Amino acid sequence: SRSINLAVIPGDGIGQEVVAEGLKVLSAVLPQDVKLETKEYDFGAKRYRATGETLTDADLDALKKHDAILLGAIGDPSVPSGVLERGFLLKLRFAFDHHVNLRPSKLLPGVATPLAGEPQIDFVVVREGTEGPYTGNGGTIRKGTEHEVATEVSVNTAFGVERVVRDAFARAQARPRKKLALIHKNNVLTFAGHLWTNIFNKVAEEFPDVTTEYMHVDAATIYLVTQPERFDVIVTDNLFGDIITDLAAAVSGGIGVAASGNINPSGEFPSMFEPVHGSAPDIAGQGKADPTATVLSVALLLRHLGYEAEAARIDEAVSADLSERTGKPARSTSEIGDALAVRVAG
Amino acid sequence: SRSINLAVIPGDGIGQEVVAEGLKVLSAVLPQDVKLETKEYDFGAKRYRATGETLTDADLDALKKHDAILLGAIGDPSVPSGVLERGFLLKLRFAFDHHVNLRPSKLLPGVATPLAGEPQIDFVVVREGTEGPYTGNGGTIRKGTEHEVATEVSVNTAFGVERVVRDAFARAQARPRKKLALIHKNNVLTFAGHLWTNIFNKVAEEFPDVTTEYMHVDAATIYLVTQPERFDVIVTDNLFGDIITDLAAAVSGGIGVAASGNINPSGEFPSMFEPVHGSAPDIAGQGKADPTATVLSVALLLRHLGYEAEAARIDEAVSADLSERTGKPARSTSEIGDALAVRVAG
Ligand SMILES: CC(C)[C@H](C(=O)O)[C@@H](O)C(=O)O
Ligand SMILES: CC(C)[C@H](C(=O)O)[C@@H](O)C(=O)O
Repeated sequence: SRSINLAVIPGDGIGQEVVAEGLKVLSAVLPQDVKLETKEYDFGAKRYRATGETLTDADLDALKKHDAILLGAIGDPSVPSGVLERGFLLKLRFAFDHHVNLRPSKLLPGVATPLAGEPQIDFVVVREGTEGPYTGNGGTIRKGTEHEVATEVSVNTAFGVERVVRDAFARAQARPRKKLALIHKNNVLTFAGHLWTNIFNKVAEEFPDVTTEYMHVDAATIYLVTQPERFDVIVTDNLFGDIITDLAAAVSGGIGVAASGNINPSGEFPSMFEPVHGSAPDIAGQGKADPTATVLSVALLLRHLGYEAEAARIDEAVSADLSERTGKPARSTSEIGDALAVRVAG
Repeated sequence: SRSINLAVIPGDGIGQEVVAEGLKVLSAVLPQDVKLETKEYDFGAKRYRATGETLTDADLDALKKHDAILLGAIGDPSVPSGVLERGFLLKLRFAFDHHVNLRPSKLLPGVATPLAGEPQIDFVVVREGTEGPYTGNGGTIRKGTEHEVATEVSVNTAFGVERVVRDAFARAQARPRKKLALIHKNNVLTFAGHLWTNIFNKVAEEFPDVTTEYMHVDAATIYLVTQPERFDVIVTDNLFGDIITDLAAAVSGGIGVAASGNINPSGEFPSMFEPVHGSAPDIAGQGKADPTATVLSVALLLRHLGYEAEAARIDEAVSADLSERTGKPARSTSEIGDALAVRVAG
């Protein structure tokens, strides 16, 4: 008999609320014969304030035993900027070698977009997750003086770039349009840029049916608002991926519906799934948060674990729910979760 | 009697065409008593292919003697990516200490935007121009092998950050709304992020009438498409500034109308003014390029040299011209230049 042993990290702010709905939909969609076990972890601002801990070795050992991780959101104004991001979120991505950060952007029918006209948006960003300017490599001298110097080092390796580029080519090849765009800034960041570009071009030879293009990150932001239909699969570095996926989320329905997976493709470590949005302390505890991004992250999680039919049922339920929203009064977090749970069960 | 001794660098592709129109409008707007002297320089792809040179010490010495520089665009597919960017554009910005990279974004009446509704867009980005990930600091080991490692070092100094932050506060204070947003990624790039944030907060104390906010660069891309009216003045690092100013240009009428100044505020070296767009080899030589961004860059140039009334006349002429474009047949580069020259002279 099949089973899913899930680590659940609700986290801070609206994380608690949206994860509850994600789990509700997950339970509703799973067939009877799949045993779902969940274990909740209290990581986040509250634990940090109480213990000073963000993510210990023992925590990592415990998390390692799970098949996957569902995360709500981490971050709170009471904790200095960077502490939980570097100490928890990034620490986890790096410790579990989540090198494929998968972020689909699809503008579903009936969903509002800030763009004029009726843009067709259906692409996925494969963001590198363990290198680039995110390694924490850098430092400060003469801190707080007028002679302070602070550096940030972007670290890029052939090993790290090639594996994520290969993953992106495989994803592009599996899609109808078979297009892959590399986004970087190789005219300025020439060291990292040449590494990315050379590996991209080399791997491209093994995927002759995939149409490729290269685009500078600044130009990419223009195309994302003027010709988003141009994109099918995008592969990019950690920081550029961070920036363009927020923009991509904004144009394709907002971060209320943007899901993401932090994937370790080999399965050596559990992958983690989370909405792209943050903990939104301003609306926390009010039942106002849209759990859709978390529910879509649950679909990515199921797909990753091989439950393709169930993932598809969630995607369809979300599409149907979104297409019926216009003109209706706003629903609470749990009302949306309930509605989606009913749809996936039906 | 007054005079302007201008260095003109038409450069590559459409650079030639748009600079001709910029000069046409400049001549038309200047009062009789101002003597305009121009000297053209042949920098760019053609010279690089012929001589292997991008920008020599002798070139810099020659340019130094001018009051300002007007540049069209540099870049050509025949030259490997990075050679002219690093060897000419960035070399010039660094050599002449162009630390204030000024990029206004204003959606003028009648101008098309990819955004739905009728967004109000009127802000200016003050992008740092001599530090951050643009210093060329970094390197590659084991190039071309599976063990290649490439680094890019973002270098940030208190000196460099404080001077650009001060400039931005002064600009914000001089505007009616008096708002300044710092854009960075201080939750991940904590070394550089803390330097920027601390200096921003320190300088803010001297400008109590300026309302400030901090925003992560990823979130900023969302606001640029969902709430662009939120912004008045933005100050940011070199790379984030590069990215968000292209997005800002896209939402406020496109890069056909986006002007920029690479400014050395002390006047120790001449400042350089250029459209944000590139050399667009695909449409070069066809009279299709819109010279408006170059003409608006001429306005920034005039304002920098103290010709405020003339700069305002150009801005007004451009506004009037843009507001009358809808529904009319497309004009050639020189037709647009002619029309603007007539307006500013009248
Ligand atoms: C919170 C932060 C560390 C994170 C990132 O920069 O990756 C977030 O913006 C994201 O996109 O998941
Ligand atoms: C061409 C390139 C070096 C340049 C930059 O990155 O600054 C351009 O994109 C710009 O914005 O002026």
